[in-house]
Amino acid sequence: MSLLSCFELGIVDRLRDNPGMSATELADAVGTKPDAVEQLLFLMVKEGFVAHDETSGGYALDALAHVEEADLKRALRYMNLIKVTALRQLFYLTESARTGTVVGLKELYGAGGTLYDAVADHQDLNDAWLPLMNTVTANADPWFFDRIEIPSGAQVLDLAGNTGLGAIHAYQYKKSPGLRVTTFDLPEKEAEALANFRAEGLADHLSFVGGNVFDSIPTGFDTVLIKHFLDMFDRADVLRILRGVHGSLNPGGQVHILVPVYPEDITRTDNYNVDFFPAFFIGCTMGQGGPQKLSVYQRWLEECGFTVTNAVTKDAAEIPPDVIPVQAVISATKNA
Amino acid sequence: MSLLSCFELGIVDRLRDNPGMSATELADAVGTKPDAVEQLLFLMVKEGFVAHDETSGGYALDALAHVEEADLKRALRYMNLIKVTALRQLFYLTESARTGTVVGLKELYGAGGTLYDAVADHQDLNDAWLPLMNTVTANADPWFFDRIEIPSGAQVLDLAGNTGLGAIHAYQYKKSPGLRVTTFDLPEKEAEALANFRAEGLADHLSFVGGNVFDSIPTGFDTVLIKHFLDMFDRADVLRILRGVHGSLNPGGQVHILVPVYPEDITRTDNYNVDFFPAFFIGCTMGQGGPQKLSVYQRWLEECGFTVTNAVTKDAAEIPPDVIPVQAVISATKNA
Repeated sequence: MSLLSCFELGIVDRLRDNPGMSATELADAVGTKPDAVEQLLFLMVKEGFVAHDETSGGYALDALAHVEEADLKRALRYMNLIKVTALRQLFYLTESARTGTVVGLKELYGAGGTLYDAVADHQDLNDAWLPLMNTVTANADPWFFDRIEIPSGAQVLDLAGNTGLGAIHAYQYKKSPGLRVTTFDLPEKEAEALANFRAEGLADHLSFVGGNVFDSIPTGFDTVLIKHFLDMFDRADVLRILRGVHGSLNPGGQVHILVPVYPEDITRTDNYNVDFFPAFFIGCTMGQGGPQKLSVYQRWLEECGFTVTNAVTKDAAEIPPDVIPVQAVISATKNA
Repeated sequence: MSLLSCFELGIVDRLRDNPGMSATELADAVGTKPDAVEQLLFLMVKEGFVAHDETSGGYALDALAHVEEADLKRALRYMNLIKVTALRQLFYLTESARTGTVVGLKELYGAGGTLYDAVADHQDLNDAWLPLMNTVTANADPWFFDRIEIPSGAQVLDLAGNTGLGAIHAYQYKKSPGLRVTTFDLPEKEAEALANFRAEGLADHLSFVGGNVFDSIPTGFDTVLIKHFLDMFDRADVLRILRGVHGSLNPGGQVHILVPVYPEDITRTDNYNVDFFPAFFIGCTMGQGGPQKLSVYQRWLEECGFTVTNAVTKDAAEIPPDVIPVQAVISATKNA
């Protein structure tokens, strides 16, 4: 928060525009006291983000001067997500784990459901969450579609496809004669999804079916996509979903899953999913869930009547160090 | 919070008593779901706190098995302090820096003042804060009194001495014929201070004067002690306090200060004061303040008419790594 506060107060932007400003000049510019500016900048100097000239008393960006704007924006989005959707909520982590509900959302927002419910009613939560989700999707989808095959003319179901972005991407990346992609999600998403399809000029190729994955999933598909979804649930519900998908697929049909995974060697230090997701899912978003190891998802798919044909974890070295989800793609074929 | 939650849920205690328990057994024992236990323990395994036997599925304490109980209790007190007095409050750090007030206390507790005011009305804040403050005092006072001299029979003032613990320690560590120690603090502390003096059988040697350091400090003292206090204020108020102390001392009198300090080389990694205190004082306790470097306190003392005679920072290597305040003692004589 010391770092984020230096951004929120505008200290970093002032130093970018005017290197060498003193604590007093910065305080005047951003509307606080010089003492507070000095205190907050101590840690920035310790970490090498900001430089301090002891003789002149002036501050200047140090490492922060060399961060590309796109990288900075993305990192700030992550910091803001954690601030708004997690920092206060995690105070209630233990109670959330005990009850299987997001106690922090209830205490802080009076919201009884999940974060995904609460973003509809609370602008601050939505503003912190949506830009990051869009960034994650924009970064992950090209990688995902590059690693899966969708047969020409296939009937595709995008499970829990929200308002249709996944269906649009699927059609754009995998276009073929007769290809049809159906978004399946709660009925209240239908109007916005159809509007999105029309806006992209894809209304003839994309459709929407309303329903709940735990009730019944529509049938007759060659391919089912499950993106950013399985990690939201405990084992029993993941198995229910996978069995439902099994029923929705034609014989020989395929499911392609995009999901963050823990490393097989849990002690690896280059994968931050373990540091972030357990507390985030249990205490901040769902009151349950969390990613698994790739091998666990493979085993669960086999238990549900699939044969895994491909399973690849993204190389952590390809992911900017501020980005938390290390994703995997898992493809599996419905057993005869 | 993932770590603290494993303690709060009782998972660590169960594993200490019964190494090898599975996630299901642990979940039954502590009243949550096996899925949540697994998720929360992933990070414990990554960090080497807990071991997981992949074959049996059993968990056992790893590094946590070798932590002395006293060390563990102290570290848990720190974690609980940060959870209760800082985690949610820091969401409002930027607003606190802008307003010079603890916005988090107001938003979360409806409390208009400082943390030191709020602990009187809010049991959870007090329960998190007081045991830690007592630990800090118990650890710091022997070191502090070992490094200062109080003349035989001196008249001593313990500035902002709260309910008298500092006066009691001063008498016990520095007893001499005629030694008299006066606690100076807000009038509402008097009754409890006097009761504490009586309980220790020291009512003949200790006394209490009610007042506010920013109004007028009683005069005629040979020695003034300022412990855990200067770091609560911005520069202007620290100077007001030091000038007031100057006025309260007899010619040639001495002030002895115990205060956390930042290292002279701010980039040193073995002093966590820089990581913790700016955000803690501005966002969680005072809406202002924070420690300074030892050299800054020395300079401020010289500005206020003192000659510094001794200034020692505690060796960070002597402090357990979970303990945040790296303290210094500074002694100075009132100039003629």
